[in-house]
Amino acid sequence: MTISPFDHPILSGLLGDEALAAQFTARAEIDAVLRFERALAEAEAQEGVIPQAAAEAIAARISGFSPDINALKAGTARDGVLVPALVVELRTKLPQAHRAHLHFGATSQDAIDTGRALRLKHVCDILSERLASLAHGLAALEARDGAKRVMGHTRMQAAVPVTAARKIRVWREPLERHSERLDRVRREIEILHFGGAAGTLDKLGAKGPAVARRIAVSLGLFPVDHARHSERDGIADLASLLSLITGSLGKMGQDIALAAQSEMGEIALSDGGGSSAMPHKKNPVAAETLVALARFNATLLSGMHHGLVHENERSGAAWTLEWMLLPQMVVATGTALLRAAELTGAVTFQPLAR
Amino acid sequence: MTISPFDHPILSGLLGDEALAAQFTARAEIDAVLRFERALAEAEAQEGVIPQAAAEAIAARISGFSPDINALKAGTARDGVLVPALVVELRTKLPQAHRAHLHFGATSQDAIDTGRALRLKHVCDILSERLASLAHGLAALEARDGAKRVMGHTRMQAAVPVTAARKIRVWREPLERHSERLDRVRREIEILHFGGAAGTLDKLGAKGPAVARRIAVSLGLFPVDHARHSERDGIADLASLLSLITGSLGKMGQDIALAAQSEMGEIALSDGGGSSAMPHKKNPVAAETLVALARFNATLLSGMHHGLVHENERSGAAWTLEWMLLPQMVVATGTALLRAAELTGAVTFQPLAR
Amino acid sequence: MTISPFDHPILSGLLGDEALAAQFTARAEIDAVLRFERALAEAEAQEGVIPQAAAEAIAARISGFSPDINALKAGTARDGVLVPALVVELRTKLPQAHRAHLHFGATSQDAIDTGRALRLKHVCDILSERLASLAHGLAALEARDGAKRVMGHTRMQAAVPVTAARKIRVWREPLERHSERLDRVRREIEILHFGGAAGTLDKLGAKGPAVARRIAVSLGLFPVDHARHSERDGIADLASLLSLITGSLGKMGQDIALAAQSEMGEIALSDGGGSSAMPHKKNPVAAETLVALARFNATLLSGMHHGLVHENERSGAAWTLEWMLLPQMVVATGTALLRAAELTGAVTFQPLAR
Amino acid sequence: MTISPFDHPILSGLLGDEALAAQFTARAEIDAVLRFERALAEAEAQEGVIPQAAAEAIAARISGFSPDINALKAGTARDGVLVPALVVELRTKLPQAHRAHLHFGATSQDAIDTGRALRLKHVCDILSERLASLAHGLAALEARDGAKRVMGHTRMQAAVPVTAARKIRVWREPLERHSERLDRVRREIEILHFGGAAGTLDKLGAKGPAVARRIAVSLGLFPVDHARHSERDGIADLASLLSLITGSLGKMGQDIALAAQSEMGEIALSDGGGSSAMPHKKNPVAAETLVALARFNATLLSGMHHGLVHENERSGAAWTLEWMLLPQMVVATGTALLRAAELTGAVTFQPLAR
Repeated sequence: MTISPFDHPILSGLLGDEALAAQFTARAEIDAVLRFERALAEAEAQEGVIPQAAAEAIAARISGFSPDINALKAGTARDGVLVPALVVELRTKLPQAHRAHLHFGATSQDAIDTGRALRLKHVCDILSERLASLAHGLAALEARDGAKRVMGHTRMQAAVPVTAARKIRVWREPLERHSERLDRVRREIEILHFGGAAGTLDKLGAKGPAVARRIAVSLGLFPVDHARHSERDGIADLASLLSLITGSLGKMGQDIALAAQSEMGEIALSDGGGSSAMPHKKNPVAAETLVALARFNATLLSGMHHGLVHENERSGAAWTLEWMLLPQMVVATGTALLRAAELTGAVTFQPLAR
Repeated sequence: MTISPFDHPILSGLLGDEALAAQFTARAEIDAVLRFERALAEAEAQEGVIPQAAAEAIAARISGFSPDINALKAGTARDGVLVPALVVELRTKLPQAHRAHLHFGATSQDAIDTGRALRLKHVCDILSERLASLAHGLAALEARDGAKRVMGHTRMQAAVPVTAARKIRVWREPLERHSERLDRVRREIEILHFGGAAGTLDKLGAKGPAVARRIAVSLGLFPVDHARHSERDGIADLASLLSLITGSLGKMGQDIALAAQSEMGEIALSDGGGSSAMPHKKNPVAAETLVALARFNATLLSGMHHGLVHENERSGAAWTLEWMLLPQMVVATGTALLRAAELTGAVTFQPLAR
Repeated sequence: MTISPFDHPILSGLLGDEALAAQFTARAEIDAVLRFERALAEAEAQEGVIPQAAAEAIAARISGFSPDINALKAGTARDGVLVPALVVELRTKLPQAHRAHLHFGATSQDAIDTGRALRLKHVCDILSERLASLAHGLAALEARDGAKRVMGHTRMQAAVPVTAARKIRVWREPLERHSERLDRVRREIEILHFGGAAGTLDKLGAKGPAVARRIAVSLGLFPVDHARHSERDGIADLASLLSLITGSLGKMGQDIALAAQSEMGEIALSDGGGSSAMPHKKNPVAAETLVALARFNATLLSGMHHGLVHENERSGAAWTLEWMLLPQMVVATGTALLRAAELTGAVTFQPLAR
Repeated sequence: MTISPFDHPILSGLLGDEALAAQFTARAEIDAVLRFERALAEAEAQEGVIPQAAAEAIAARISGFSPDINALKAGTARDGVLVPALVVELRTKLPQAHRAHLHFGATSQDAIDTGRALRLKHVCDILSERLASLAHGLAALEARDGAKRVMGHTRMQAAVPVTAARKIRVWREPLERHSERLDRVRREIEILHFGGAAGTLDKLGAKGPAVARRIAVSLGLFPVDHARHSERDGIADLASLLSLITGSLGKMGQDIALAAQSEMGEIALSDGGGSSAMPHKKNPVAAETLVALARFNATLLSGMHHGLVHENERSGAAWTLEWMLLPQMVVATGTALLRAAELTGAVTFQPLAR
């Protein structure tokens, strides 16, 4: 089904991003959860919390495990989260003696949020690379067109001429700042979430911190002093950054759509969308899409910040809200970076007649 | 792919709504667009704008036509909308002499927005039925539990006792108002969009209004005086109503989650979600889901209202933004009505000890 | 102090609306609360709930009563609402025997929400009048300029010529729909809120409904079957309508700002803002202001819908949130109608050269 | 007038923040703009752009200058910004020979945005101090109550016991991260905005950078390579941080309101609001206020991110939108920090009975 344009067999041509979408498939989510469960069992075995044989059995069963999707769906309908049903099913594959050692001391949120962190690590890598690449593309455009003189516009009126370089730098420099922001924000995102029932690792006693350290190292995540189950500032901050990125690209798109107006002619686009009614038209589709994506993320961001009011030790309501918003914001950001790169290649500034 | 929880093979167990999602598949969208194209050709033939034979050829080709999804995807990536590629492909199936008669005088937005109106008609039917059914379910709950005395709470503190009937009516009566609102709003939604290139039916001359009337009758849509391509108040008003519905249900969910707290015990839930860490728990998953869906729609609503700033005769940016938001809001509303109905069946009020 | 531009001694020149702001002064709020208290006492006396002499004493004391603003401020800091402190102070003015008869059976929310309804009635009158007047002004513009041919633009590109009449009707017709919506919405707004401690008029016994009817008649409000303390759909629906109005005006502003671009010259503005750096410029300030107000209300609307999740019999959190948002949305709407009327008078369409 | 609760003579008792509000008075804004104009003249004189005597005359006239507020209001209504009218009035106080030297090479946005940066510097100082102070207060609470055992709650159900220390740390640690974020964000906020008509300092020729450096040093602002008139990521990022802060405090408020429920009794509050109907109640007003402020900022944040789509060299629409949103967000954040500090002092954890 195709409620989201990002998943839609047709609209994803305009709005989709396959590389990022791959991090949000059911399979990717399950795999990431299973990576957590395996790392958990291995760390607990190393610390003597569960037998070594249990960890080996768990790793063996996880390898190649393909859960019953319908059972997970039914379980999620009941439990609000897929982990209980997944753990139940996986336990049936284990020898009786090791069943209780799977997921020992952990809670659903540990598995889901750590799994998300693992997938967001890939996301951040991709976004980081695309930000750099787009800044590079804009620098190349500046090198080629920067010396051209075009009209500056303030408050929707012609002001004084500026160089194309000025316009391009205003698009590029925020991207460089966003790259720096991303480097910082990911330190709050690529973290281990491991707290057990109420965040205190109550079943692990004194061994909790050592187990947590081992899991973090094994998964390549930053360790944190305690589980941040109900502290959502890291994820909300990532959402803010995603919206900053699409917002800056939306400004670029709006500038280009304005400059490419038929009567304005400051920018020529080497491609453009066709119209079913007016074959003569070349529509600035990519530029408009950047504006739409900026407003989309600016809208959804609000919900991610409402999610900060995450009551008690775990809020089903606030947590579920994140699931409905964040993947879309990520893909909207990735799509915007792709569209902006294409657009950069399609732009030619038209110098002012003297 | 599964960026949206509403489409997700697992999360849709919690958040999906198959009946409404069926209106937002690629196939449903194409079918609705093709219904418009066929009705257009037939109306134009009846008014003598195109030959009768052309209309017959068009109807014949549309019947059973299954377009090349990849071509539509590529076309949408280029044109920002699927119609140009669809029309191009369909024309290749027509005799040369009739090709220009397909989509004659129309523009992409006519086909897309009318197609959406046709699908929203089904949506409104379903929502209307569910609103009535839920109100009925709540009336039955009131009949059974209404006389029980429970504690009223204001500002998160026990206030004075009230009857369960009072609490249930506060959940039900807004639904009755929403039903009335829906009856009105759908008159602004289930309308024909037919304006041609810039909304003026410029290619149809004096025959425009007559063609429009015929199409509206044929499709069971309300006629309007002129195309509302850039007047988005109808669709934004529908979005507001969707959020009113989920908001009222979110209040019901929040009330039930509070009343079902372990220490409160005012409401017993006959089902409840399990925990991977704490088998003793019965989590009020459906109630929390209602809260999450309310906040989700309250968030997205903002973007639909930004879409009112739909510049000129057609805005690619504002229109695309609607596509990203409205289907999700519709499905969130449908899901909330389903979850609320289940929850109504699971609730038992626990009377205050005297 | 002047945190809000609507209240600001300087920015209110651009963004303020004195007529609507007058409904949101502290004095207006207190007066409306006192009107409720007086009507309550009179109705209760007529129904024999309190002595006639008490009602007379209360009415006499309320006449000309000017409470201690600092005491109300301190009371609101403590109680979250001004009513407890107001009632305490007013009781000190009453003979001992009548003190308990003031505010008898009522709660703070009855006084605040009814007081707000009384003020919103004036607001709706003003908005209704301005909507009609603006539609009239646009009809006059159409009568003068409608026959001129101007370029239609779709997706930010020149499409085909249209008449100015087409453009003006797209601005006017939504206003006519908004007028009809306002007539309906006000029936859900101009209502009595009277429920006592937990919404059930528990202290009035069988006399509750009769007292409520009398108060509603006396205050010119629509009666409702029971207090809607925690049913916020009426107020959220008003907020939606406010945003629909500013959204439609924002579209008009965006169209005019685009048409008035220096290079476009489709619309000449008889006034325009000056620049401190470029004396030659005429900035389309009113048009830009309409866009800003549209985005402002589209933003705040979301929060009003979050307020629907109004837990239990009264939510301090959700209620306070409304106070922070609604007055601004009202004034933004009024301001937009004023600016749009000025702009309508300043616009001259420039016909296309043949 | 008192449309905003933050400015309201009564509601400001609950929601106001005098220290922060002082940065948003008309007088504070004018003073900051005048500081920019004086620093500009002095820097230009030092670089030989204007005569030294002009800079002295300008400084002398600015000292003690109190503009005609009504003229500024009328000017703002016309120009959309107060600077043109302010410059006109101030020029009339100068000898004819020096008039053109005032505001030379600058534009309104230079003065307004630099003036805002100067005021936000004070704001950041205050917020920084309050974040540290609140973290300190929470550490003291932990020292006193941390060892008490209370019930942990997940998904609105009792889970397993935790220490009060765990709960308090979840409130405190995000504040420490917010302090670090603030230290970084202010480097993008406390910057000089100086670009002239279209951001390129076109009137200053080669001397632009040197003048800019001098102004930045004189005003204690960070220099930037070029004017960021249309790059709004810094201010949008500040808005995100404000919402992160209020969101974290909203979580604390929600936790406390839940723990202080009559039937829960996990937290006792030493103060609490009174009810006009139920004298026995102690309402958790400050806790509810924190929730309301969190939702308020989460709502407004969206609009600040829409402001990133700041078209061309200066957007009247996007800029005006910021003015309507940011001051409120700042004061909401300051208020939340004040309320949270009071609440911290009022909380006593009630240990679980064994």
